[in-house]
Amino acid sequence: MIQTIEHGPVRELRLDRPPANALSPELIVALRQAVEVAPREGARALVLSGAPRRFSGGLDVPLLLTLDRRAMDAVWRDFYGLLRALAASTVPIAAAITGHAPAGGTVLALFCDWRIVAAGDWAIGLNEVQVGLPLPPVIYRALQRLVGPRQAGRLALEGVLISPVEAASIGLVDEVVPPDQVVESAVAWCQKLLAVPQGALALTRREARAELVGFFGSDLSSELQEVSAAWWADETQRVLRGLVERLAQKKSSK
Amino acid sequence: MIQTIEHGPVRELRLDRPPANALSPELIVALRQAVEVAPREGARALVLSGAPRRFSGGLDVPLLLTLDRRAMDAVWRDFYGLLRALAASTVPIAAAITGHAPAGGTVLALFCDWRIVAAGDWAIGLNEVQVGLPLPPVIYRALQRLVGPRQAGRLALEGVLISPVEAASIGLVDEVVPPDQVVESAVAWCQKLLAVPQGALALTRREARAELVGFFGSDLSSELQEVSAAWWADETQRVLRGLVERLAQKKSSK
Amino acid sequence: MIQTIEHGPVRELRLDRPPANALSPELIVALRQAVEVAPREGARALVLSGAPRRFSGGLDVPLLLTLDRRAMDAVWRDFYGLLRALAASTVPIAAAITGHAPAGGTVLALFCDWRIVAAGDWAIGLNEVQVGLPLPPVIYRALQRLVGPRQAGRLALEGVLISPVEAASIGLVDEVVPPDQVVESAVAWCQKLLAVPQGALALTRREARAELVGFFGSDLSSELQEVSAAWWADETQRVLRGLVERLAQKKSSK
Repeated sequence: MIQTIEHGPVRELRLDRPPANALSPELIVALRQAVEVAPREGARALVLSGAPRRFSGGLDVPLLLTLDRRAMDAVWRDFYGLLRALAASTVPIAAAITGHAPAGGTVLALFCDWRIVAAGDWAIGLNEVQVGLPLPPVIYRALQRLVGPRQAGRLALEGVLISPVEAASIGLVDEVVPPDQVVESAVAWCQKLLAVPQGALALTRREARAELVGFFGSDLSSELQEVSAAWWADETQRVLRGLVERLAQKKSSK
Repeated sequence: MIQTIEHGPVRELRLDRPPANALSPELIVALRQAVEVAPREGARALVLSGAPRRFSGGLDVPLLLTLDRRAMDAVWRDFYGLLRALAASTVPIAAAITGHAPAGGTVLALFCDWRIVAAGDWAIGLNEVQVGLPLPPVIYRALQRLVGPRQAGRLALEGVLISPVEAASIGLVDEVVPPDQVVESAVAWCQKLLAVPQGALALTRREARAELVGFFGSDLSSELQEVSAAWWADETQRVLRGLVERLAQKKSSK
Repeated sequence: MIQTIEHGPVRELRLDRPPANALSPELIVALRQAVEVAPREGARALVLSGAPRRFSGGLDVPLLLTLDRRAMDAVWRDFYGLLRALAASTVPIAAAITGHAPAGGTVLALFCDWRIVAAGDWAIGLNEVQVGLPLPPVIYRALQRLVGPRQAGRLALEGVLISPVEAASIGLVDEVVPPDQVVESAVAWCQKLLAVPQGALALTRREARAELVGFFGSDLSSELQEVSAAWWADETQRVLRGLVERLAQKKSSK
């Protein structure tokens, strides 16, 4: 589900779960492990990428709707664990957003160090609220850290999906490059950081990431309980199941 | 002093205290009550508007200067209560800034969810310091939340009044529209939020507003004492009374 | 080492330590004293300027490398004391960035109220990491306060030096003016603040600076120990000594 490609000291973790790189429980756990193990295996920086036109479609809702409460609670815990692993990574991580990145796709990028997106007509943003899911607080804070309270409110409350160019204009992503250069640009960004004295970089980066890592510093079990309760709320289940039905009908009508 | 106009589930509260919609003690109390009572009466979102060319002239200084210390302390307490009611509203509030909004006029908008301003040559900004009033801390923080520490410092220390276009360029307002569309644009913004699943919206909005609501979370009585002391400082009284005299002379010379 | 030039109530402190206005231990102490004594001597605002084309080259690394640990610890303590004096100044301070301001040069400006830079091909930014020095936490926070977490991360981790125009575009400086107008523009900014009621200004400015001053509110001795340890780290010493050697060779080859 994850291809590992070495670019010298920079390791690319390429999401590989067709068709849309949706995040299944297994992919969430595997990605967390891949992020945590990389520095121990000698990677000095990471690039998180996806397929051309498909970075990640976010949580695999049709699959998750088949889970019971206990299994779904584990998914949320693991997803938070993945976000924490990205935030607290001891090596820099650049997101190479190769295509569509709605909801969970954009969420992954929020917790990386740098976000480079392929030019194109991709959907980027936090549209959780549109599908009935409140944006979890730790994700809201990471969003607000990047784009400020005003844009964070707009993006999260309206649940809009925006283009790479608009995302760059408000700081939700950092660079827009031609699609065939998105991975190499992310690798180049990593190499730029690897060219500076590494002790100085590590301490400065610790400071730069302190707020983001701090979001995970307190006990999040009550937050996870709220996130779980929201998932099982009648409204949320109805909207999510309606969404999945429409997707299924679309598929079967082809 | 306040017209109530229903746009389906969106209730418009239109300030109606000619000539300038200046905030009298009664209007402050009435607006707070109108904001707090609206959700209980079925309003699912609010638009705060004013008269064409006059959103609100801010505190009614000539009137307030006739009050003694006890009455003036009550005004500040009520004004803080109004700002808290706007911040903590359980339904979204869009400001439809129909015209001039100096000082207190802009302050009201800071605590709403979204700010749409009529295109035109209106004065927007926090010019309190120019008339001898220090910007109260809770208002400074709300300003800084929207525009960041750098612009907040500039606006508050210089006490400049700026145009709608400049206000939009620094994030002090969110949209500039033709004057005859400002109310309908604010209603449309509310309707956009009412179209998403409401449970998800409410929880996400709670997170989006947490910092703003938090400004009122601690005991503000010592802050209110400082605000009161500043109002009665010799410098402030001299500047305010000079201002009122000049306004009176201008009127009588017409 | 510091010229004092009075512009009415505005006192200009002009760094005068040729050739590059590098910060020696003596200049650091002298500048702190000059900032602290100015209000007591009647100055109502300050302008911090440098030489044409040379605002300040930052810490005088060749000189500091001759110091032992005890002396170097004192330098860091004094430098923090200088930054605190700038942050906590009871009178407004405008930086008139007359030319190059790498590393420590830009750091001084971060703690002022306003930053006006001469148009030109000057190097501005926090390139500490490039020369092996982690950016001290208090400086990182001041940087982040001005430009936000996203740009702060980029500037500090990449250690890039940027032009005045780019610095203005991200909020690292506030105005770019022709070189022969940089000091008078800074004086004019001060005069603008001196024209508003001063009691109201002082209280509003206290609020505007509260976060910045607060960075120095907790006990910073453990932070200073970390900063000292970083200075004496093998990597840092090697990079700094390499830098000084290259500078010496460049000089002797002329």
